[in-house]
Amino acid sequence: MTAPWLPPITDDDLARYEAAGFGKPSGHGIRPALLIIDVQYRTVGSRPMPFFEAVQEYTTSCGEVGWAAVHEIARLLAVFRGLGLPVLYPHVAPKRSYDAGRLGGKVPAIMDVPEQGYRFVEEVAPEADDVLVPKRHPSAFFGTALVSYLIDREVDTVVVTGCTTSGCVRATAVDAFSYNFHVLVPEECVYDRSPTVHAVNLFDIAQKYADVMPTDGVIAAVTDLGSAAGGDTVQSC
Amino acid sequence: MTAPWLPPITDDDLARYEAAGFGKPSGHGIRPALLIIDVQYRTVGSRPMPFFEAVQEYTTSCGEVGWAAVHEIARLLAVFRGLGLPVLYPHVAPKRSYDAGRLGGKVPAIMDVPEQGYRFVEEVAPEADDVLVPKRHPSAFFGTALVSYLIDREVDTVVVTGCTTSGCVRATAVDAFSYNFHVLVPEECVYDRSPTVHAVNLFDIAQKYADVMPTDGVIAAVTDLGSAAGGDTVQSC
Amino acid sequence: MTAPWLPPITDDDLARYEAAGFGKPSGHGIRPALLIIDVQYRTVGSRPMPFFEAVQEYTTSCGEVGWAAVHEIARLLAVFRGLGLPVLYPHVAPKRSYDAGRLGGKVPAIMDVPEQGYRFVEEVAPEADDVLVPKRHPSAFFGTALVSYLIDREVDTVVVTGCTTSGCVRATAVDAFSYNFHVLVPEECVYDRSPTVHAVNLFDIAQKYADVMPTDGVIAAVTDLGSAAGGDTVQSC
Amino acid sequence: MTAPWLPPITDDDLARYEAAGFGKPSGHGIRPALLIIDVQYRTVGSRPMPFFEAVQEYTTSCGEVGWAAVHEIARLLAVFRGLGLPVLYPHVAPKRSYDAGRLGGKVPAIMDVPEQGYRFVEEVAPEADDVLVPKRHPSAFFGTALVSYLIDREVDTVVVTGCTTSGCVRATAVDAFSYNFHVLVPEECVYDRSPTVHAVNLFDIAQKYADVMPTDGVIAAVTDLGSAAGGDTVQSC
Repeated sequence: MTAPWLPPITDDDLARYEAAGFGKPSGHGIRPALLIIDVQYRTVGSRPMPFFEAVQEYTTSCGEVGWAAVHEIARLLAVFRGLGLPVLYPHVAPKRSYDAGRLGGKVPAIMDVPEQGYRFVEEVAPEADDVLVPKRHPSAFFGTALVSYLIDREVDTVVVTGCTTSGCVRATAVDAFSYNFHVLVPEECVYDRSPTVHAVNLFDIAQKYADVMPTDGVIAAVTDLGSAAGGDTVQSC
Repeated sequence: MTAPWLPPITDDDLARYEAAGFGKPSGHGIRPALLIIDVQYRTVGSRPMPFFEAVQEYTTSCGEVGWAAVHEIARLLAVFRGLGLPVLYPHVAPKRSYDAGRLGGKVPAIMDVPEQGYRFVEEVAPEADDVLVPKRHPSAFFGTALVSYLIDREVDTVVVTGCTTSGCVRATAVDAFSYNFHVLVPEECVYDRSPTVHAVNLFDIAQKYADVMPTDGVIAAVTDLGSAAGGDTVQSC
Repeated sequence: MTAPWLPPITDDDLARYEAAGFGKPSGHGIRPALLIIDVQYRTVGSRPMPFFEAVQEYTTSCGEVGWAAVHEIARLLAVFRGLGLPVLYPHVAPKRSYDAGRLGGKVPAIMDVPEQGYRFVEEVAPEADDVLVPKRHPSAFFGTALVSYLIDREVDTVVVTGCTTSGCVRATAVDAFSYNFHVLVPEECVYDRSPTVHAVNLFDIAQKYADVMPTDGVIAAVTDLGSAAGGDTVQSC
Repeated sequence: MTAPWLPPITDDDLARYEAAGFGKPSGHGIRPALLIIDVQYRTVGSRPMPFFEAVQEYTTSCGEVGWAAVHEIARLLAVFRGLGLPVLYPHVAPKRSYDAGRLGGKVPAIMDVPEQGYRFVEEVAPEADDVLVPKRHPSAFFGTALVSYLIDREVDTVVVTGCTTSGCVRATAVDAFSYNFHVLVPEECVYDRSPTVHAVNLFDIAQKYADVMPTDGVIAAVTDLGSAAGGDTVQSC
């Protein structure tokens, strides 16, 4: 098991979770879906830049760590497409004045992101039959039809990618866990604006809600399923 | 503004959130409700003990930090009761076999907490008209009637207390924020099993979802409201 | 009290509900919002026509009863706009292939409504700050951010208009009731494709979930509130 | 196809729905679950009685039509138990004062049902591993963990039984349809306090949300699935 949260998580923290019995593997089912959350130019910038430069272009940008994740998501996406497995894009639509609510109070700059920032990052952009899920809140499930789409596709396992680890990724993982989907988080496929926050949120997710693992681990698991269960879909590729 | 997340949050982390424009005060409305989440003996133990001793009694116990929070919650609760404001108790009911789901996989020990652990901590226990909200998932809103209770009571501000900061408190704050309630988190009234995780989750909540402040700040705000808005309720006390 | 459900509701039916103690007035609060559901050309046609003619243009059309309701909704809408009260438009967006789900199975024709049918009926169309709520299911609350918009606007009373009485209007009224909003249904402002079904659904709504009354009754109630509570808003008109 | 809604549904009504393209079969999946909603003594009475006598015992009672349905549900339940398929009991728990909300306004008598009325009807009562789902609103999904239980059990088809047809059964069918479960309603297994309302609601459900069919049709469908999919479960009986 990798431990991308060391430090700031300490040996004492680890000992406490161990004593409490958290962090057992939750495993996966046989019908996975891939969620690519908020991978729009507003979260990575028009090109890889260090964070403090990137944030000048879009205040919502995480900078070059976002682009590193994009390349990993692209590898995973190719596997899902090759196996004909469902891919869904929870994303933020351009804000309307009436959308402000508590978010507009807490993070006012988020209401003024330039329109072009909302475009999907080309390397992992949606294709014709992919499901677009516009959302207004952290969780991709909150106020959206996401759970209905997943039930319609008989999904039992949700692979969560995109950003931010501490925001929409975590909130989505918590809700997916609460709905009783199996949840997998490929650790190189999620990103955030601060390394401390990214690390501790990955730790929380791994201890309580999901199996956090390298992208290659998720690819291996999904490929196994593809061979076993999706017979004719696989052969049509 | 207090900063109970220093360290592990670094100056670099703070500079990043500042640059991104997060963490503005979200303010409060005029009809607050108090949520006391999971303050049951299973989360604090039958008496104050250091964590590694407490966890022997109940694996779900946070130990003496929980008891410190209980005393702070009791102070806040007295203010709500004095003003006749609504108090609600989201809590975990004893687990039935059919409740296991993903939680039973991730944290198996949580299925076997002794029955007496589910009793409410006496210092802050419910009274006759308080609303009991049994829950099965991290967020007090998920799969419960909580939002209906809050709308019925015309609540516009939710004060979140209890545990764990990184678990049910945070998930509840995220959902309350998504529903567009104002959210206040009195920092001494929430607790968790690990100090690093507690601190970083308070930081996340403060940057994105809620106003985190000392208990006394919440008491001052609520008392002001009580004087202004709840006139005859106050006089009946 | 009017009784727009006689017949097909019989004296025996009425006696049963009377004996069971249903149908008491639920009253209204002081901060109403107007929902105009699915009043798009696909549900009324490009001009008033008898049902069997209208259904040739759009299979989803209710025909001339829809236009009669449009004129009543327009009267009510003018009152809400005059008082500066919130107006929200739950509506169906053009269907994407991935939206089929159970609806596409049960009512296949609904997947092929011509694009121009989705335009809002001009007489009651949204203005700049009105809230647009795209939906995919009968209830305007299901899989949408509607409840968050209502909480943000501190709404306590929902006035439900549009179509169909037995479909989206009823499902929305049931959910609004479940969320503990007061629900008012102005009987001339809702419409459906069949008179029997329209009448019995109005009866059900009136017995269990909402106060069903003439448009003028709703206008009187809302105008009273405007005078009492919305002081400066009113004066700005 | 049976037509338990004739009359009051007229030939004109039927022609309208035919012209609009509603009422196609939605079919079923391969992992059904049985919902037995509100089959408690408060809805059928302590013994079969005509409606106006039954309502004297419990105002919420539907009388002897309820008992007729109980016997049909018992037949269906035996099939589900024999095949080891999931059975869930959405039900109303004794009301607490804080539960009144809009329901207490619309139907005040519902707040005072005697405690013994809440017991499950013995003929179809829950066994050890059946899932109990206490609810406070019409839909068995609203404010409950029902959808999480169904996802955990990988259910794709929901068989809805119990009462009332126009209340909890319909609201549950609408939500199950919205979540994209296949929905089956065995027509002899649902009941209501008024024949007109019962018939028209069955019609609405059949046209828009579910496949309404005789109990024997559901038994045949489920038995087929049991033979095909649940192999070893069947043999263990």
